[in-house]
Amino acid sequence: MLIEIILTVEQVNPQELKGKTVVILDILRATTNIVNALAHGCREVIPTLTIEEALTLASKLPKHTFLLGGERKREKIPGFDLANSPLEYGEEVAGKTIIMTTTNGTKAIKQAVLAKNLLIGSLLNGAAVAEYCLDLNKDLVILCAGTKGLFSLEDSVAAGYLVDYLAGKNREIQLADLSIALRELYQTYASRILEPLSLSENGRSLLTMGKKADLDFAAQLNLYQIVPLFQQGKIRLISWQ
Amino acid sequence: MLIEIILTVEQVNPQELKGKTVVILDILRATTNIVNALAHGCREVIPTLTIEEALTLASKLPKHTFLLGGERKREKIPGFDLANSPLEYGEEVAGKTIIMTTTNGTKAIKQAVLAKNLLIGSLLNGAAVAEYCLDLNKDLVILCAGTKGLFSLEDSVAAGYLVDYLAGKNREIQLADLSIALRELYQTYASRILEPLSLSENGRSLLTMGKKADLDFAAQLNLYQIVPLFQQGKIRLISWQ
Repeated sequence: MLIEIILTVEQVNPQELKGKTVVILDILRATTNIVNALAHGCREVIPTLTIEEALTLASKLPKHTFLLGGERKREKIPGFDLANSPLEYGEEVAGKTIIMTTTNGTKAIKQAVLAKNLLIGSLLNGAAVAEYCLDLNKDLVILCAGTKGLFSLEDSVAAGYLVDYLAGKNREIQLADLSIALRELYQTYASRILEPLSLSENGRSLLTMGKKADLDFAAQLNLYQIVPLFQQGKIRLISWQ
Repeated sequence: MLIEIILTVEQVNPQELKGKTVVILDILRATTNIVNALAHGCREVIPTLTIEEALTLASKLPKHTFLLGGERKREKIPGFDLANSPLEYGEEVAGKTIIMTTTNGTKAIKQAVLAKNLLIGSLLNGAAVAEYCLDLNKDLVILCAGTKGLFSLEDSVAAGYLVDYLAGKNREIQLADLSIALRELYQTYASRILEPLSLSENGRSLLTMGKKADLDFAAQLNLYQIVPLFQQGKIRLISWQ
């Protein structure tokens, strides 16, 4: 198993992901929200690139079956039901379809739609995703959404966690330089995983906005044992146990 | 002072470096060689992108005033005087001009020629370069050459050393996520700086080739207190003390 890590969505060449196994990470906050929503019985999450696309899709669905969620510039989108705080994606999403558009996370998912297996990862479900990848035993691309085209500390620490988990279970994995570096980065913070989230540019902005609870929530390593999979435009849970 | 880090030469937009202060890092081995050569009294180093350019330049210089150095695929170039081992750039280079072409390092220098201050860094002279940058007190770009378009562990650890030094001396420096991560990476390896060089893809290839001495040499943190500056096509030492 080879592990490739892409540090920002801007570095993705969609064609190069064709047929591959890809894990998307956008810890603050899109993939954390998706994982939390599905853990709370949300039927499916449909990511869209634009607000217009989200509204068009919503206009075709029966009322009360869906919720519109997402953000622009870290703020709720006018007319949407939910913003981008994982705490909003709790019990009220049960049974619903969520149409979601965010700045980095949903863009990363859409850039990877040619992948054969497109998985949604977060700290909340890191071990479950890693175990699923070990079962697949295929080369893996970890795609960090990043923040506005830049390296993001929280996504990179989560990528390092996946590498650490995978390399710990499969000694035959050859680690490229970036995997070695991010694994070390994760190990540095392993006993204090909230710290890199708080130090990151994203995290500092959220703290300024009074959103410390979002960071505390996103930092809960392995809260859930679930694996969300994107297929035919929709993210649903894999039931494979 | 803002610090921006670019992880590979392929990510450089030359126009965006215009007027900036840029430190080039190619630890294994181009910038290590340049620093060692200048420490040994080499008159100047002229980087070229191609072998042809190097030979053309050589044909215009008086015999015995220059040496041709560099590599392709980590091997000496036919007809050249020196390969790409820092140990070759010792006493025999005193007083000479070195014309140098390598795969990643000289390419990184050439991509940054629009910089206002273009400095050549390595572990050998990290503190001297960092002190010079503190004196300049301008925003800084650290350009890691990388390896064949990929993140390179040894360059990134050296970048982390520069960040650590600068942030330790100037508490007002705001660190972006990538600076935080590479500073942590350096601190992880601070007491065993040879380790990331040995673990890196470059390092492993050199070890396979029997070039352990190159790694040992390149890992000598602050062996020299010199700052090489690229100006008008030539790299020479700054005398500012």
